[in-house]
Amino acid sequence: MNWSRRSNYDYLSKGFTFAGISAGLKDSSKKDLALILAPNNSVCSGVFTQSSVKASCIDICKQRLRETSGFIRAILVNSGHANACTGSQGLRDSILATKELSKLLGCNENEVLICSTGVIGVPIPMTNLIEALPNLVDRLDHNNLNDASEAILTTDLVQKKIVMETVIDGKNICIAGFAKGSGMIYPNMATMLAFLTCDAGIDKNSWDQIINNAVKVSFNTITVDGETSTNDTFLAINSGDKIHKKNLPIIQEGVNLVCQYLAKSIARDGEGANCLIEVLVQGTKNDSDAIKIAKKITNSSLVKTAIHGSDPNWGRIISAAGNAGIIFDLQKVDLVIGEFVILEKGRLQNFNKQKVVSYLKSKMNSTYLQDDIVEIKIHFNDGNGYAKSWGCDFSKQYIEINSEYTT
Amino acid sequence: MNWSRRSNYDYLSKGFTFAGISAGLKDSSKKDLALILAPNNSVCSGVFTQSSVKASCIDICKQRLRETSGFIRAILVNSGHANACTGSQGLRDSILATKELSKLLGCNENEVLICSTGVIGVPIPMTNLIEALPNLVDRLDHNNLNDASEAILTTDLVQKKIVMETVIDGKNICIAGFAKGSGMIYPNMATMLAFLTCDAGIDKNSWDQIINNAVKVSFNTITVDGETSTNDTFLAINSGDKIHKKNLPIIQEGVNLVCQYLAKSIARDGEGANCLIEVLVQGTKNDSDAIKIAKKITNSSLVKTAIHGSDPNWGRIISAAGNAGIIFDLQKVDLVIGEFVILEKGRLQNFNKQKVVSYLKSKMNSTYLQDDIVEIKIHFNDGNGYAKSWGCDFSKQYIEINSEYTT
Repeated sequence: MNWSRRSNYDYLSKGFTFAGISAGLKDSSKKDLALILAPNNSVCSGVFTQSSVKASCIDICKQRLRETSGFIRAILVNSGHANACTGSQGLRDSILATKELSKLLGCNENEVLICSTGVIGVPIPMTNLIEALPNLVDRLDHNNLNDASEAILTTDLVQKKIVMETVIDGKNICIAGFAKGSGMIYPNMATMLAFLTCDAGIDKNSWDQIINNAVKVSFNTITVDGETSTNDTFLAINSGDKIHKKNLPIIQEGVNLVCQYLAKSIARDGEGANCLIEVLVQGTKNDSDAIKIAKKITNSSLVKTAIHGSDPNWGRIISAAGNAGIIFDLQKVDLVIGEFVILEKGRLQNFNKQKVVSYLKSKMNSTYLQDDIVEIKIHFNDGNGYAKSWGCDFSKQYIEINSEYTT
Repeated sequence: MNWSRRSNYDYLSKGFTFAGISAGLKDSSKKDLALILAPNNSVCSGVFTQSSVKASCIDICKQRLRETSGFIRAILVNSGHANACTGSQGLRDSILATKELSKLLGCNENEVLICSTGVIGVPIPMTNLIEALPNLVDRLDHNNLNDASEAILTTDLVQKKIVMETVIDGKNICIAGFAKGSGMIYPNMATMLAFLTCDAGIDKNSWDQIINNAVKVSFNTITVDGETSTNDTFLAINSGDKIHKKNLPIIQEGVNLVCQYLAKSIARDGEGANCLIEVLVQGTKNDSDAIKIAKKITNSSLVKTAIHGSDPNWGRIISAAGNAGIIFDLQKVDLVIGEFVILEKGRLQNFNKQKVVSYLKSKMNSTYLQDDIVEIKIHFNDGNGYAKSWGCDFSKQYIEINSEYTT
């Protein structure tokens, strides 16, 4: 691996600054407004929700990325209100917010993007937002990624952020990312917002390609509850001296690492979740079959509740795989939970059930991200297909959060 | 409507007999083995799970329906063990059970079908089953549908059974149906077993058509948890004097009514459910778009938890509709919950939120099937598409049942 993880969040991707404040948009005093400011000549790529019902901020982002060919300067993010299903008022609000911000930043209105997350159908308290903008701009700083990362959260219990760095041709290169999301999380872009900055200069076409590749193996492989949101957005900006084409694979590796870390953090922080479930599917006819099966397993209520109950109910895993719409021969299937071989070529092995229960229990009670991964490996021995998907267990707290809190 | 519901379960479809006993297959003393015996020259149609992982009993049913052209005499059902993922042993067990039963009944082995439901991957206690067969056959009686209906249950809290009758050309015609299912329930045949007997004689082709039509508007429109099972089976047998072709629409109506009642009963008895959710989708370009959207809404964890919390969170309904993969214009959408108009042509109406909360609460606390229906109507004003789907709310009890009980 060419990349190492940095433990602090100060002075990150060169030229980028961040801010996060409480603008009084939420009922609480929590931070709720974030800003990322990129240097001149930065190049931005975006990936958005595939839902037919989109917040108007999604339309604005898409339109401005087209108009500016990706030359974006700033991203404003409000949390607490999704500004979806708010009609023409919602659209006017989004445009007004970016207009006022562009005046303060001295850039064009269409160089400013806006992302929103929170309750659907309730307008953003615009007076509070507009009044808070000067303070937000004042707070912009190299070292404030932490504040920005905090200000985009809703039901999240923890911040999701990571900085990776490497040296290319004698120059330090840094990729910093942060994200939010814990409910309404399903492949096809989960209800999530994620932002990434990179200080290696890369042209728009190559950057688009890198970002799309990364999304396929990260955000689009996770699930919490099978719900795609109205506001899902991933925006990635790069800036700086152009690096040589030969080094693009190194950048791809770094972007993948950052995106996978953020995606796993979102699954791990799924509403009510106690562990991260990692499903590795191999040996299908192709990668596309593999990801369909992997997602079907991580998204199965019955698999998720079984793992929550530390029950090695392998029948539910196989049954979920059977529902992915891919024909396979059960007599060829190997299934491994943790290090325990459950099925070999479709035949049930004489595994120690109590040991598997203990394995699952140890994951549920773990408090460290690196120790709480329930690993499920399934091999179809029928080709070279490969995919990984991440999800979480399904607990009573998910029901509690979603039946007692308007999200 | 040509049909009326009968309140008792004695002497039903002419010539059919039923039995249900405890054969000691379950840990408890509950009934776990059922039998339906049909008269000579009965015609059977079957619809089965579309999962790639099927219990061997499914293969046996399909093969025997082909071999006999649908001339089936008996259906044996065991509950407690799905006999799925049990390899060649499972297949041998299914064959042995039907062979022994055919000897007792004096019919051909391939005139006997077998259905199983319960835990995946654990073999049926065959000694107990075989030993219980003579007693099971002894108990066959016109009046024993109730016992059979009880013996096929697993996590179900209530029996699902109904008898409808009518008079055609001066003759009484009776359709009796019973079913099981409360978890692993999702369109494409829910984890359910359902059986129907009809004493109007109908040829195989017409009967197949009637049964397929009925499944489309009943069992394939319900969901509890989005899980398709390894064992889903619906078997329908008719017998008796051939009725005139012109009366087939009346039979179709009766079969639809019985299947819809059973389907709704399954959704209503969904694991941990407190109410039945009925989603009516209209005004899409076609019926196929309508059913996709309706199912997406009844299957949405966020809609189901909101209703569980009596929260009129209409944004989640619209967001779920947006994820069905059907493009629509939000500015044309009408949304009604109960009698309360929420959206009209995409515009939020000034509805009384507290009244909608009370409406939802009253459904959650209701104890009668007819009073506990949460009605959601969504009109896209873009064509003549129409579909209904049924589901249930999502509660902590679902998690409890599925994380603390091996199913």
